[in-house]
Amino acid sequence: MRIAVLGVGLIGGSVALAARRRLGAHVSGVDPVLDHSVVDGVGFADADIVVVATPVDTLEQEVRRALSETRGIVTDVGSVKRALVAAIDDERFIGGHPLAGAETGGVEHAREDLFDDATWYLTPTAKTSGVALEKLHRFITAIGARPAVIDAADHDRVMAAVSHLPHVLANVLVEQASQVLGGEILPPVGPSFRDATRVAGASPELWGQIYAANAEALGEQIDAVIARLQHLRLDGAWQADVAAMRARLLAEATGATQELRVSVPNQPGVVADLALTLGRAGINISDMSLAPSPDAASGVVGLWVPESDLDRARELIAQKGLAVS
Amino acid sequence: MRIAVLGVGLIGGSVALAARRRLGAHVSGVDPVLDHSVVDGVGFADADIVVVATPVDTLEQEVRRALSETRGIVTDVGSVKRALVAAIDDERFIGGHPLAGAETGGVEHAREDLFDDATWYLTPTAKTSGVALEKLHRFITAIGARPAVIDAADHDRVMAAVSHLPHVLANVLVEQASQVLGGEILPPVGPSFRDATRVAGASPELWGQIYAANAEALGEQIDAVIARLQHLRLDGAWQADVAAMRARLLAEATGATQELRVSVPNQPGVVADLALTLGRAGINISDMSLAPSPDAASGVVGLWVPESDLDRARELIAQKGLAVS
Repeated sequence: MRIAVLGVGLIGGSVALAARRRLGAHVSGVDPVLDHSVVDGVGFADADIVVVATPVDTLEQEVRRALSETRGIVTDVGSVKRALVAAIDDERFIGGHPLAGAETGGVEHAREDLFDDATWYLTPTAKTSGVALEKLHRFITAIGARPAVIDAADHDRVMAAVSHLPHVLANVLVEQASQVLGGEILPPVGPSFRDATRVAGASPELWGQIYAANAEALGEQIDAVIARLQHLRLDGAWQADVAAMRARLLAEATGATQELRVSVPNQPGVVADLALTLGRAGINISDMSLAPSPDAASGVVGLWVPESDLDRARELIAQKGLAVS
Repeated sequence: MRIAVLGVGLIGGSVALAARRRLGAHVSGVDPVLDHSVVDGVGFADADIVVVATPVDTLEQEVRRALSETRGIVTDVGSVKRALVAAIDDERFIGGHPLAGAETGGVEHAREDLFDDATWYLTPTAKTSGVALEKLHRFITAIGARPAVIDAADHDRVMAAVSHLPHVLANVLVEQASQVLGGEILPPVGPSFRDATRVAGASPELWGQIYAANAEALGEQIDAVIARLQHLRLDGAWQADVAAMRARLLAEATGATQELRVSVPNQPGVVADLALTLGRAGINISDMSLAPSPDAASGVVGLWVPESDLDRARELIAQKGLAVS
């Protein structure tokens, strides 16, 4: 297998290390920002998969370059997805976002096991080639991560709600306390303020970029918070409801998975649509295989899903008129 | 010294233990809720200081009872102060709030050292007797706590901003994530969400009461947060500003203190006004003494303040036309 990495920082460097050591892949690394390349074995043009790991504001340009200069699958590792995925209209491109290594930069920290057990979002569209999605899904599993297929807009909304919004509200708490205390130090009111504001003011440059990149989805979440704050039930019943909600959010996923085999017609978008449908229902596909039938008019997709989601997954697939076993 | 404690739970029980063991005080404990009393030595009517530590919704009634049945100083330990202090118009009453033991209840957890190094807010008014304030201040220091004089409305605002608001925003974050994820468990996005929501849904009954008791000040803080959210600067400069603000809020107080001696006329409210003025400027009085002059027309107040605040304190006192050395 031939892997090209565009942008050799922490993420790109770690992808290169994991691909070479765990898959024995031929890896080319090119850093368009630093303008130096570390070519190893094969050239860029022959790559089966190109991983674009350049800074957020260069992603669209570098993805386009990769699509025009290679015939392989192209993916990126940017932390927001909707705008990029909407801009790139190509069956060989699949947006990606590994939840790993966000805060510590530099190729000098790259390591083979950076992605072990990390969620790695993939955001195919109705245009995406099923073969490309299956190949990329397997590659990501092979380097240690857990791929999770999700719609690009849903991805940005989830990241806004569970990652970016906590940073915004932590900042607001600090500003508010600072104004009320008028320069005094915090009275010792227990750990709640300290915990709630632990990420306040984190990495100004990085977070400035993240806010800007996900401005649209984050803006929607902030508006939703404003609406909530305008209609609060400040009572014990609210506390109890929230306690139950938090327990559900932080529940552990069950470990065991089972395979579902689905017969699919050989049409563009069918596999991506299947994966997105399950993703939307909160059902994670931990592994995926794709076998074309001899006549090439149809194929069989193997999907490994959590045992506890098996019946729901089967039902959702059947609703699409596909045969599942 | 004779101390009466009305309401023998965690706080009242700990006050009783500390007063008896550290000051050798005669302590009477009465629990109007449980309707049993532990009288030990002296009766209620002779108390020098009555500490009302009953549930929040009974405080006003019990404080009135204590004022009518005794001639001593009366204080309470409720976590909100504005409404109670406004309702009780008596020079012998001083609102109080120790920042200790809020979450674990029951007299069985009472201990002599519960208040060691804990901030204990006192909220005198212009009506408050200076002699009463000095006596209560010294009592609180003697049982191990650090008294901090603050205006009742400021107290409620500070508690709303640094304690109650973090709980509200943690709840809102959980609700918002829960809605966006639609029943899915939280993706592993790092510790920010977990930290920011650690107190979400805490102790429903207790927090229902706290929200209700401080509804006015908390409502103001929520409105202020809404206004902030409507005008955010979502950029790196904001992050950097907030980082600096948080560092200031969490700075350590310096240890060394020095005494200021202030000559005061024998007028009601002078000492309370002095203490409130310094409190409002964020200058904490760690110890206080009051010596009447032989003619009883004036006196000298000794105030121990942090060395770093000495010049500012001197200036504020001089602005009141009082002689300070």
